Amino acid sequence: MASSSYSISPCAACKSLRRKCLPNCIFSPYFPPEEPQKFAIVHKIFGASNVNKLLNEVLPHQREDAVKSLAYEAEARLKDPVYGCVGAISVLQSQVIKLQKELDATQADLIRYASSSPSPPSSVLFGRSRMGHGGSSSASYDQNSVFYYPSPRSNETCGHTQERGDHGSI
Amino acid sequence: MASSSYSISPCAACKSLRRKCLPNCIFSPYFPPEEPQKFAIVHKIFGASNVNKLLNEVLPHQREDAVKSLAYEAEARLKDPVYGCVGAISVLQSQVIKLQKELDATQADLIRYASSSPSPPSSVLFGRSRMGHGGSSSASYDQNSVFYYPSPRSNETCGHTQERGDHGSI
Repeated sequence: MASSSYSISPCAACKSLRRKCLPNCIFSPYFPPEEPQKFAIVHKIFGASNVNKLLNEVLPHQREDAVKSLAYEAEARLKDPVYGCVGAISVLQSQVIKLQKELDATQADLIRYASSSPSPPSSVLFGRSRMGHGGSSSASYDQNSVFYYPSPRSNETCGHTQERGDHGSI
Repeated sequence: MASSSYSISPCAACKSLRRKCLPNCIFSPYFPPEEPQKFAIVHKIFGASNVNKLLNEVLPHQREDAVKSLAYEAEARLKDPVYGCVGAISVLQSQVIKLQKELDATQADLIRYASSSPSPPSSVLFGRSRMGHGGSSSASYDQNSVFYYPSPRSNETCGHTQERGDHGSI
C-alpha cells in the first residue's frame, strides 16, 4: 500500500531536483508543480541551494515576496545577461532625473510668468497643494533613498532600453 | 625553482575557491585579489559556478559590466534579503509615477493660468522647448520600457525605503 506522501504531487523544485517532496518542504508553497519554469529560472540564476538558504534566512511571511523578487531578478538576468534588472534601475534613475529637471523648470516658468502678471492666483506662487499633489519636494529625487547604480549607460537616453530590444514586461 | 605562475597573486575568486589561478582565468580580470569582498558577495548570492557560466555566455567586452551589475544585485540582496535590488525598482517606479503626475498637473496649471491672462508668452502655451528641456513627453513614463515590478509595496510612499532603514548607497 502506498504511503500518503505518494498521493501528493511534488513541488516544482523537488521534481526538478529529483528528490522526495516532504510535507515541510521549504520550496513547496512558492514553487507549485504547475509552474515548473518559475523554479527553473531561479535555480539557473541563483542555484537551489542559495535559494534554500535565503528562504531560511527570512521570516515565513516574507518568503512569498522573496521568491517573487528572486523570480523577477532571475527572469531579468535571463533576458539581459549583462545588466539584469539593474538595467531597469538605470533606466528608471534616468527617467526620475529627467522628470525632476523638467518639473523644476516648469514650476520656475509658472512662477516667473505669474509674478510678471498683475494678479496671479496665490496657488501659483505658493505651491500646488490645492490640487492635492503637494509640492515638488514630495516627489523630488533623492539618490540616497535607493541603491544608486552608477551605470556606464547613464548618459544614454531613456529610450535605450527599447533600442536594445531585449526588455519587456514580466 | 618555482614556476612563473607562482609569482602571480591569485585572483580573489581562485583564492576563495582554493584553486590555482591560471593565466586564462575568467574571474581574474574582474575579481582582483585586493577586493576579496566583491567575489565573496557574488559567490554567496549567485554561486561561483553560475557566475562562471554567465561570464562565458556574454562577450568579453561585456564582462566587466556584467560583473558590476552582479555585484550590485548581490550587495542589494545581502542588505535586503526579501526584495534585493527589486526594492529599488519599486521605489523608483513610484517616484517616476509621482513626478509624472506632478509635472502633468503643473503644466496644466501653467496652460490654464496663461490662457486666462491677456497676453501669455507663446512659450507657455506651446511648450518649453526654448528652455532646451523638450516637452513632457520626452520624459514621460512608459511602464513597458522597463521590467515592471508589480510590487505589493507599490501603494506605500516613496519614503518607505528609509523607513525600513536597510537601504543605502553602494
